[in-house]
Amino acid sequence: MAIRTVFRGAVLPTAWYNVVPDLPFKLPPPVNARTGFPVGPHDLAQVIPHELLEQELGAEQREVRIPREVRDLYRTWRPTPLVRAKMLEEALGTPARLYYKYEGTSPTGSYEANTAIPQAYYAGRARAKKLVSGAGDGEWATSLAMATNKFGLVAKVYVVQASLARRPRLKTLAELWNAQVVPSPSTETRTGRQALAADPEAPGSLGLAMSEALEEAMTDKDAKYATGTLLTSVILHQTVIGLEARRQMEHIGELPDVIIGAVGGGSGFGGLIAPFLPLRLDGRPIRFVAAEPAAVPSLTRGTYAYDYPDAVGLLPLLKMYTLGHNYAGPTIHAGSMRYHGMSPLVSALYDNGLVEAVAVGQVPALGSAIQFARTESVLAAPDVAYCLHVVVAEAMRCKETGEAKTILFAVNTHGQSNLSTYEAYLSELIQDIHPDEAGIQRSLQDLPVPGTAP
Amino acid sequence: MAIRTVFRGAVLPTAWYNVVPDLPFKLPPPVNARTGFPVGPHDLAQVIPHELLEQELGAEQREVRIPREVRDLYRTWRPTPLVRAKMLEEALGTPARLYYKYEGTSPTGSYEANTAIPQAYYAGRARAKKLVSGAGDGEWATSLAMATNKFGLVAKVYVVQASLARRPRLKTLAELWNAQVVPSPSTETRTGRQALAADPEAPGSLGLAMSEALEEAMTDKDAKYATGTLLTSVILHQTVIGLEARRQMEHIGELPDVIIGAVGGGSGFGGLIAPFLPLRLDGRPIRFVAAEPAAVPSLTRGTYAYDYPDAVGLLPLLKMYTLGHNYAGPTIHAGSMRYHGMSPLVSALYDNGLVEAVAVGQVPALGSAIQFARTESVLAAPDVAYCLHVVVAEAMRCKETGEAKTILFAVNTHGQSNLSTYEAYLSELIQDIHPDEAGIQRSLQDLPVPGTAP
Repeated sequence: MAIRTVFRGAVLPTAWYNVVPDLPFKLPPPVNARTGFPVGPHDLAQVIPHELLEQELGAEQREVRIPREVRDLYRTWRPTPLVRAKMLEEALGTPARLYYKYEGTSPTGSYEANTAIPQAYYAGRARAKKLVSGAGDGEWATSLAMATNKFGLVAKVYVVQASLARRPRLKTLAELWNAQVVPSPSTETRTGRQALAADPEAPGSLGLAMSEALEEAMTDKDAKYATGTLLTSVILHQTVIGLEARRQMEHIGELPDVIIGAVGGGSGFGGLIAPFLPLRLDGRPIRFVAAEPAAVPSLTRGTYAYDYPDAVGLLPLLKMYTLGHNYAGPTIHAGSMRYHGMSPLVSALYDNGLVEAVAVGQVPALGSAIQFARTESVLAAPDVAYCLHVVVAEAMRCKETGEAKTILFAVNTHGQSNLSTYEAYLSELIQDIHPDEAGIQRSLQDLPVPGTAP
Repeated sequence: MAIRTVFRGAVLPTAWYNVVPDLPFKLPPPVNARTGFPVGPHDLAQVIPHELLEQELGAEQREVRIPREVRDLYRTWRPTPLVRAKMLEEALGTPARLYYKYEGTSPTGSYEANTAIPQAYYAGRARAKKLVSGAGDGEWATSLAMATNKFGLVAKVYVVQASLARRPRLKTLAELWNAQVVPSPSTETRTGRQALAADPEAPGSLGLAMSEALEEAMTDKDAKYATGTLLTSVILHQTVIGLEARRQMEHIGELPDVIIGAVGGGSGFGGLIAPFLPLRLDGRPIRFVAAEPAAVPSLTRGTYAYDYPDAVGLLPLLKMYTLGHNYAGPTIHAGSMRYHGMSPLVSALYDNGLVEAVAVGQVPALGSAIQFARTESVLAAPDVAYCLHVVVAEAMRCKETGEAKTILFAVNTHGQSNLSTYEAYLSELIQDIHPDEAGIQRSLQDLPVPGTAP
């Protein structure tokens, strides 16, 4: 403990970083499934505030100013600390220098507040009264509840039934913050009723929850639709993570050789790496490694194709690594990691060889999370565990080779509201779950062809 | 939301503030029960590191340097935000300006990390391998687990059985961080076995848990003893809260007219108000209001006398407002508020008319906490609820009188790991609990007389 381990840095960014103009390739645009043409701002104007649509579809400037009201709320917990994981380094006996950006100090314990706040802010400016969204896990629901509350809207969140069943108290918390939480599939939407008719015990999926939320937003003129992950605009908001981390590392005279993050929809990982991408494009050999769950391996097992982001195809098609929008995937402990696709930006980076991907089983992942907790005294959420496992593996490789690499990773969500998963792990009640190969193959045969939808 | 509501300030204090030299009275010292004389550093040197004993017994300088290693860890979440509770103001329609210092961004969600870290640091410097403590609620156990982990010690915490039964997962969290959590009364100590022999169903008390911990520390040469509240040295560590708050308020050109805090043992409240006391002593009419639970009203119902801080009298006598060390008190939802005494510093301030006290029932307290959650999107721990109720009452008085008072209060712990209490409240399963009058009267007859103990 003789060295300094926690770095804060005083300055909150005034602008998000839009990486799109700096990319060495053109990011494939969202397209209309029926026409096959790129969607324009008008196609979604009814359900998404125009500032967000601009950020999603057309932002050409590298810097997008963070509204004053958003910065005000960011200041509750931002800038977040960059922490040297000295105790973990010592436990592993690695020469690697491990740094993590810790987002668990947010009011909801999750990085998802970074995008919930601007989405609620823009919806409020568009005079919406309600913000509807789908969530794979509880943190998006609580983050959105907190954010809408601050701007005088109410949140309604369809949360995957299987996740909610495991963590019923997140519903209490969201409701204490005025939000309405509905287990998905629900009887409130046509989409949900159809899913329940097909399987009354359906565990739900993030894609399905998104469809339910969008259906509701489309039929309520006072409502807007929000998304916790996947979109380029969401990654834009999450670049506060990477911007702060880069500034903090530069301040202490370090730059990462490897950046590692867990990917569900890819927004946290995208926001962490984007501000470091220009360094790589300028020739610095930084590696970017995405850790995904072996049970839902969209990058390492999926296809790069246009697919629906939601289960029933209400949203435009996105070009992404996907297991097919019909792939619900086996139930794993990290509910937010159970999504069939990967954000178009992360997908394109992966396709262009700028990002690597590793699939990790949930048992070794949770094991590494416990090692991290016992050394660093930070209990990470189960989705972060996938990242931690790759970090430990990379640090151990450094031990073998003697390389003193600098490794940056993100602990995006704390696990204190998900202790049941760790209790189950410690009781050896958690097994590794393999992907549903037959399901993936079936699902990949159903990929839509742009311009042919009815 | 047009105005700025969150204030951070960039600078972490480099020294804690020792208010004792500035007091207009002499703080009564701890005394040896047997001799009746003030205790010296040697009396407790076996179980308490000498730096802490100096801070407790004799610090004459106003500024006590925060060790570099402690500041390093503080930086993980400090400085904490000062937040204008604009949404609550609007909901109440009050002209008062409400500011809260939010400590819930700490790694354990609690201000108790502020003192856990230095206590673990000093114990590590004293080459202890184990830090033993008693806890009324789970947050002290997790804070101590986090802190000892960072300095290579292990924590062993005796936690009041009644609290632990209500929040079993805090045991999981503490154990994930290497700590050993033992329900008190336990069979591990003579004290615990005696209590269980008298009543096998004993719910326990913080005083009893402290006795068990001290007994263990006294019989293990590798162990030191830690305390989460009560002591003047603990309040010293907690002055980071008030120092930051004062600096943040001065930065925005505000100074409080009223400061309100919840008191269990008084350390959070003491740390908040101490840096503002010199203003009052210089003639500025700042009011300091302590909110205590009506079920355990040590200030408003107790006697100012020397009493044992622990249940069986292993620690020196402290001059404090007390309900008697034999008073276990009825079980309330805020476990850490169920303590028979009040810190000597807060007691002396109250006795000298510098601090006011209000007793609040748990039902109205939790109601105000829910109002706070629904407006400010911060769920406070049940102990903070007592403070919130007094804040709301004060703000409503301002509405009646039209006074635009500036009110500062502390949200010292978040309630996200204690949702069961709010679920019970919303289901109308929580009742107000009156103090055990007969128990208090009996207990007050048993107060020790210094110099007469065997």
